Amino acid sequence: MLYDLAIIGGGPGGYVAAERAGAAGLSVVLFEKNELGGVCLNEGCIPTKTLLYSAKVYDYACHADRYGVRVEEPGIDFGAIFKRKEKVVRKLVGGVKAQMKAASVEVVRQAATILGRDAEGISLSAGEQAFFARKLLICTGSEAVVPPIPGLREGLGGAVVTNREILCLEEQPAELVIIGGGVIGMEFASFFNSIGTKVTVVEMLPKILGPMDDEISAMLQAQYAKKGVVFQLGCKVVAVEGDTVVYEDPDGQTCRVRGDRILVSVGRRAVLQGYGLENLGVELALNPAGRPYGIKVDERMRTSVPGVYAAGDVTGFSMLAHTASREGEVAVNDLLGKADRMRYDAIPGVVYTNPEVAGAGLTEAEAKARGIDAVVLKLPMAYSGRFVAENERGEGLCKMVVGAEDHRVLGVHMLGNPCSEIIQGACIAIEQGMSVDQLKEVVFPHPTVSEIIKETAFSCK
Amino acid sequence: MLYDLAIIGGGPGGYVAAERAGAAGLSVVLFEKNELGGVCLNEGCIPTKTLLYSAKVYDYACHADRYGVRVEEPGIDFGAIFKRKEKVVRKLVGGVKAQMKAASVEVVRQAATILGRDAEGISLSAGEQAFFARKLLICTGSEAVVPPIPGLREGLGGAVVTNREILCLEEQPAELVIIGGGVIGMEFASFFNSIGTKVTVVEMLPKILGPMDDEISAMLQAQYAKKGVVFQLGCKVVAVEGDTVVYEDPDGQTCRVRGDRILVSVGRRAVLQGYGLENLGVELALNPAGRPYGIKVDERMRTSVPGVYAAGDVTGFSMLAHTASREGEVAVNDLLGKADRMRYDAIPGVVYTNPEVAGAGLTEAEAKARGIDAVVLKLPMAYSGRFVAENERGEGLCKMVVGAEDHRVLGVHMLGNPCSEIIQGACIAIEQGMSVDQLKEVVFPHPTVSEIIKETAFSCK
Repeated sequence: MLYDLAIIGGGPGGYVAAERAGAAGLSVVLFEKNELGGVCLNEGCIPTKTLLYSAKVYDYACHADRYGVRVEEPGIDFGAIFKRKEKVVRKLVGGVKAQMKAASVEVVRQAATILGRDAEGISLSAGEQAFFARKLLICTGSEAVVPPIPGLREGLGGAVVTNREILCLEEQPAELVIIGGGVIGMEFASFFNSIGTKVTVVEMLPKILGPMDDEISAMLQAQYAKKGVVFQLGCKVVAVEGDTVVYEDPDGQTCRVRGDRILVSVGRRAVLQGYGLENLGVELALNPAGRPYGIKVDERMRTSVPGVYAAGDVTGFSMLAHTASREGEVAVNDLLGKADRMRYDAIPGVVYTNPEVAGAGLTEAEAKARGIDAVVLKLPMAYSGRFVAENERGEGLCKMVVGAEDHRVLGVHMLGNPCSEIIQGACIAIEQGMSVDQLKEVVFPHPTVSEIIKETAFSCK
Repeated sequence: MLYDLAIIGGGPGGYVAAERAGAAGLSVVLFEKNELGGVCLNEGCIPTKTLLYSAKVYDYACHADRYGVRVEEPGIDFGAIFKRKEKVVRKLVGGVKAQMKAASVEVVRQAATILGRDAEGISLSAGEQAFFARKLLICTGSEAVVPPIPGLREGLGGAVVTNREILCLEEQPAELVIIGGGVIGMEFASFFNSIGTKVTVVEMLPKILGPMDDEISAMLQAQYAKKGVVFQLGCKVVAVEGDTVVYEDPDGQTCRVRGDRILVSVGRRAVLQGYGLENLGVELALNPAGRPYGIKVDERMRTSVPGVYAAGDVTGFSMLAHTASREGEVAVNDLLGKADRMRYDAIPGVVYTNPEVAGAGLTEAEAKARGIDAVVLKLPMAYSGRFVAENERGEGLCKMVVGAEDHRVLGVHMLGNPCSEIIQGACIAIEQGMSVDQLKEVVFPHPTVSEIIKETAFSCK
């Protein structure tokens, strides 16, 4: 079979690209050896958000009395929560299947191997079948990093789990240790803390949430510490002994913490092997140590090999589902001859804790590191009437990073529900290159939490 | 005392204008005979949203089992819900007071009377004191219309209540009749339906929610009908007899429905009397019948009298808190000599039912009525993974009205939580004159309900 486009990997990079290309009239074949939807839909964003919503409903019930609602001893049904998660995932995987069908995308549910390339296109095989396509888009994604800590890899299948296995637990752990306090670690910390598991987060850096805004990360940490999560920051894990994590604290003391489960969430790594990438000879991106971390792409998502594109986690940076989807769209636009280029100035980042964290564009620290002359505007969320109406004892913050000269909005970072749903307004504003003065002229609905963006803009003198 | 600006009315038109003007260095006096915050904060937006949030927490508890959470027989404490509402209002009124102080606005807690005007400015009195200001901004707002239906006005103080009195109930009514199925009527219908009151809505038009999108209004109605709200549409109320509403149904039959309370929410009317407006001789806006419905203003919120501005409900149209605030800002910018003008293309409208309704810009019907060549794009909310994760048995819709030629976004209308917080993105896009193609290039966070805006844009062929 000859196709206009072959796509390896059916995650948010691959399936969105397949849909856009198919809808534009291209003949598309999409290879996915597991389930459509990729890590995001099957082992990442969607299952975690479903669990977190159950936790939120439980949180509401636990604090209902603050709002004049009587609830006697709420409880959770761990099995039912996980079963519902399966149902939601199945429904959405079905939705992706239907999308592929509607866009006339041929889906091959097998591992593909790249055989080679000539002037006409790319040869692939899957199972017994041969395929040929004019263009190729590689969306093979990433896998959880399991660092070479003595006992860690050996513990997999025992106490140690990654984001994949923790979604298949049959029993609630009484104690959970999380190695890595980034976004994934904090979302699981949030879920298990809500349902009553004792959670300890061991993080090598002196802060949680990696590159997210320092002040907001610290506020979130303080809120979870109050709820009972134990944070061991600046701590290096040196060994895992069965159900016990051994780490060095910032003073060099050796400490131990045990858990029924140990979640390792220290990062993800591009999948570069196992599908014949070496047969193409694409250039890889190298880290400062000279090790490859992803497929090198330009701003149109083209690799070094003509006709071959890459999108999503396999590029090794901005490992987010929505980045992958947009990169896939840019690749498709390029091969359709539409002018487009990938921009990373307004990529949102969201942490679905309770309260949520969301940001887009430059943080205060990034602006400083890049030597950008910027002003930082801040307003507590309690400035919003709706936030006060809906968050008894809640606190939050909105920060805006603004060019000192031109007053352009460069970044917006928020803590407080439902900022995950609000941040897109900031993405549009940054993408449009709007100034604070233009933002001030937009009418935001009252009373909403989203007004905080406009009010923060008004604090610019 | 001589001021740069006198403002009559401390609602969202007046207090926001006062803050902006004060922050810009003008000397400002603000007259408010009741509490700062106006109807919005004291008898409208904020108290209703606080009640509705309690109802939402109760809804969550009632349906918690759908999400794997066990809640035994949840109940409500009517008194506690209403008490909390008072607390929230007090806190936010305190916030407005603090804002006024920070902006050096002098607040006079008395009714003001306009005495007259000369070339230098405007003379006013309040209590025993005389005031003089170079400019005047009128923000006297609106009051609930109580139409001349036999027995209705007489019923006030008995079974009949407006939005004001219903917020002071001491007991939950077992049965509530709502005359008027607009936004205010539907929000109260939502609240009382959630907490178990039997609600009947009697509406003269054949649809609820007035000018909001027909299809979305019908979907909301169907959802509330399923929850037990009885809708009598196309029905004209002809009399109120004690606790009974007498109405004519579309077939001309006379029907009766009784309620422990009867809420009249058929609209609001600009406050044009009682503060010496007649001493200025400002031109009033007239309806087709020749009756005044508000103070006439231009796009800079100037009245026919030099130096006199009006903003908010007193202008008699777009009676929304956020319209008032923006109009107040436009007036202040004009008197500061900053270029600005009031635009109504992207004013959001939100209904805080559960699920919420939100829209901005043209509806399908409005585009048609204005003869605009437009395309309507539609996508069910269930297209969003997060919506599916968070809305067991929920349904919703996103509609986008797009210029047929230039593909500019003219309107976005949504049903489904939390669209009240999402719609601001659409406001920014409309205000910026963005096309569907530009919107497609914005990266929306995944998984969020807000992605529905981008996906709806992608359904444009």
